[in-house]
Amino acid sequence: MFRRTAPSSLRRTTVLALLTFLPAVAWAAGGGEAFQHTLLALVVILTGAKLGGDLAQRAGQPSVLGELVAGVILGNLHVVGVDALGFIAHDPMIDVLAQLGAVVLLFEVGLESTVAQMAKVGRPATMVALLGVIAPMLFGWGVGAWLLPEHSTYVHLFLGAALSATSVGITARVLQDLGQSQTPEARIILGAAVIDDVLGLVVLAAVSGLIQAADQGVEMALGPLLWIIAKAVLFLFGALAVGVKVMPRVYRRAARLRGDGILLGVSLAFAFLLAWAAGAAGLAPIVGAFAAGLVLEGAMFEPFARTGAAHGGDAHELEELVRPIGQLLAPVFFVVMGFRVDVAAFGDASVLGLAAALTVAAILGKQACMLGTGPGVRRFAVGVGMIPRGEVGLIFANIGLGLKIKGESVIDPSTFTAVVLMVIVTTLVTPPVLAWSLRRPGVQGAGGYPPPATPPGQDAEALPSAAGNPDAAALPDVSQDPP
Amino acid sequence: MFRRTAPSSLRRTTVLALLTFLPAVAWAAGGGEAFQHTLLALVVILTGAKLGGDLAQRAGQPSVLGELVAGVILGNLHVVGVDALGFIAHDPMIDVLAQLGAVVLLFEVGLESTVAQMAKVGRPATMVALLGVIAPMLFGWGVGAWLLPEHSTYVHLFLGAALSATSVGITARVLQDLGQSQTPEARIILGAAVIDDVLGLVVLAAVSGLIQAADQGVEMALGPLLWIIAKAVLFLFGALAVGVKVMPRVYRRAARLRGDGILLGVSLAFAFLLAWAAGAAGLAPIVGAFAAGLVLEGAMFEPFARTGAAHGGDAHELEELVRPIGQLLAPVFFVVMGFRVDVAAFGDASVLGLAAALTVAAILGKQACMLGTGPGVRRFAVGVGMIPRGEVGLIFANIGLGLKIKGESVIDPSTFTAVVLMVIVTTLVTPPVLAWSLRRPGVQGAGGYPPPATPPGQDAEALPSAAGNPDAAALPDVSQDPP
Repeated sequence: MFRRTAPSSLRRTTVLALLTFLPAVAWAAGGGEAFQHTLLALVVILTGAKLGGDLAQRAGQPSVLGELVAGVILGNLHVVGVDALGFIAHDPMIDVLAQLGAVVLLFEVGLESTVAQMAKVGRPATMVALLGVIAPMLFGWGVGAWLLPEHSTYVHLFLGAALSATSVGITARVLQDLGQSQTPEARIILGAAVIDDVLGLVVLAAVSGLIQAADQGVEMALGPLLWIIAKAVLFLFGALAVGVKVMPRVYRRAARLRGDGILLGVSLAFAFLLAWAAGAAGLAPIVGAFAAGLVLEGAMFEPFARTGAAHGGDAHELEELVRPIGQLLAPVFFVVMGFRVDVAAFGDASVLGLAAALTVAAILGKQACMLGTGPGVRRFAVGVGMIPRGEVGLIFANIGLGLKIKGESVIDPSTFTAVVLMVIVTTLVTPPVLAWSLRRPGVQGAGGYPPPATPPGQDAEALPSAAGNPDAAALPDVSQDPP
Repeated sequence: MFRRTAPSSLRRTTVLALLTFLPAVAWAAGGGEAFQHTLLALVVILTGAKLGGDLAQRAGQPSVLGELVAGVILGNLHVVGVDALGFIAHDPMIDVLAQLGAVVLLFEVGLESTVAQMAKVGRPATMVALLGVIAPMLFGWGVGAWLLPEHSTYVHLFLGAALSATSVGITARVLQDLGQSQTPEARIILGAAVIDDVLGLVVLAAVSGLIQAADQGVEMALGPLLWIIAKAVLFLFGALAVGVKVMPRVYRRAARLRGDGILLGVSLAFAFLLAWAAGAAGLAPIVGAFAAGLVLEGAMFEPFARTGAAHGGDAHELEELVRPIGQLLAPVFFVVMGFRVDVAAFGDASVLGLAAALTVAAILGKQACMLGTGPGVRRFAVGVGMIPRGEVGLIFANIGLGLKIKGESVIDPSTFTAVVLMVIVTTLVTPPVLAWSLRRPGVQGAGGYPPPATPPGQDAEALPSAAGNPDAAALPDVSQDPP
């Protein structure tokens, strides 16, 4: 059966083991040890995710909150003396599956909208993104200046930057759990989060560059900064424009291919290609996966509907084919995010004050997004949807640990712990509050923008009310409980 | 968006990179380099698999042959000066996805049969497995004694052992491509391959132990040998017996859980658990995944059919939910197997003679399996289905490289290359010949065994003819071409 060829360094160990512990040899020699860990981790993750999701739904919350909490609990069993699961948090194989889960999830969410629908929310999404980066940066700077006066202003600036970028994974999943991915609020949040990612990278590069330059007493070059922005913008508009032109042709040709799973295979290859291209352009891969989902729409798959009968079920809607893959991989992402939370490190009371202030700054800062939504949407839901910082905040903090100015780390270990706490709280607080805010009725027509100029009825499908959303039936307990 | 926390050793590099190459920093600092490779590898693999599968089907062959050949071509582009894809062959992340693909594939194939249906072929499968291990061992020994007379008899013995075990992955996929997984031939082959895996481990451990003992001038202990056999047998019978008892109860409870994808999640967790347990028992994980598939049957999912409407499509048949996951991951397994073939290493003409003799011994040896099939089956298909050695042969050869007797490797590099060639040819030759042999009509009622004592009609569903198989419609070109 299937075993890997042992790397040559393993051979001697293998031979020795043969004599002492025969049974496990043949498999272990094949490099199977790592795969055994992966299998066990998947069993733990899937079981924990499903049990946690069940408890969350019984409490009227989206499944994703239960998956995160399941991860936090499973990842901290060492506190009660159980060390068996610690390997999952740092298993590189599980990490790849988690990242792949985030990519498939954002592809799925992207599939639920089209480029044209996203273009409609282009203006409010850009406003939301800008406000949602500027306000938290100012608030974070303020918290730093207030609670860490002994540190330089660069530290305060970096703290502000760590609060700037939204982590769309959590929000996307909550919207999906609630069957609300196609609402205007969802489109604004997701569009703004993509723009946020671009802005976040610019902020990180700019602030890091400033600090480096200050440390060395030189000025920062403008060229590299502009190049970051240009690459990101070129990627986004290029991918969408080229994708919309090219993919119908690709599908017409692919429909003539023989074999099983052509529609799924071609579509996933496109999603992974754009995810890779986003990474190569300096963006997060999930931005590319989301763009791929936006590009693809039902009409492109029609050539498959005609030949579907001869292709073993390829006439299935693509979304239906991608869903089981997301159901396997997306929980890996959320449980692993919970796994990385080390509750034991939060015993330091002096850190809790800074953490609390940063969390408040992070949450209130994103409420500025409400001012940019435009008319006819549930503004509060948009403000809430932008809250989670997820792993973006973590990587900011981590880079801050490594950045030094005059021999001192920009972010010291206790500030780092406070940032991690902020990330956890913003991540955990979003699902229940977003679910609650989406159950409130939409505020149609209110707001400072002129009402949209589209003829009545055209937007009926694009602006479903919460009560009229057919997907809501899939979550009876959430939609039936009165708020 | 989603990025990993950088390990502390990366931080200094990160800071340096920030100054020189800003755009890629934020993402690369998150450990994204490896994931970028994985994404690109998946794009190449999925595209190659679909194009190769199409060409194979146009030539009247199963898709899997095209996927293997696509892997061989893509993996050897360095011969024509293209080095860009070499990383895929040794990317540990892609390797895990490939192994997961093999696990999901064998789970899928197991789902198509039940424990009761497999038990019916228990006697012929055991006979086929025994004959299929003994004959190739003798033939391989003979080839070694004939072409390598200067080497010790232990080398000949080890060569024989390397020819013994069937790699069921290829055959399982060909049977699936042809819609023949539920035929009695398929059940005999798959059952025999599982028994083969157990026997192969015993042979490997025994031969290796003998050589080690001979090298050190001591006798081999019987205890460890018996313990291997006991563990493997205990696992197989234990997993099947406990699974059939416990899983209906697990599904009744799981059906009460709220959330999406419960049926799929619980079923995959069970498959991964048995795959892990098989590995822990010293067997290959895919044996456990196959056992999990055998245990699960439609009747167990009935609690989900009743509550399905409230669970977002959980009433889907499990097989339909697993299929897209297999369509993503199984091609990774086959393309990567092709990738590992290094055609440049086969230029040595002196090796080709040994390789040809070993290949003939491997193929003819497994034809002994035809004697064990019992009545009413296409014997030739069974003999052909047992041919592929896949990676099993490779790991035998690899362990042989490391085993020394009186300072000399049991398998020297040129013998190793010959074994690799044998593995490739047996793997590539099986799909087309098996497809051809399954298109021949079944030899009902012939053979030395008494006809089965089941009442007429009871086996109607278990013994579909090739023409009457509803799945055959999915592959019109294969089933319409006259043999």
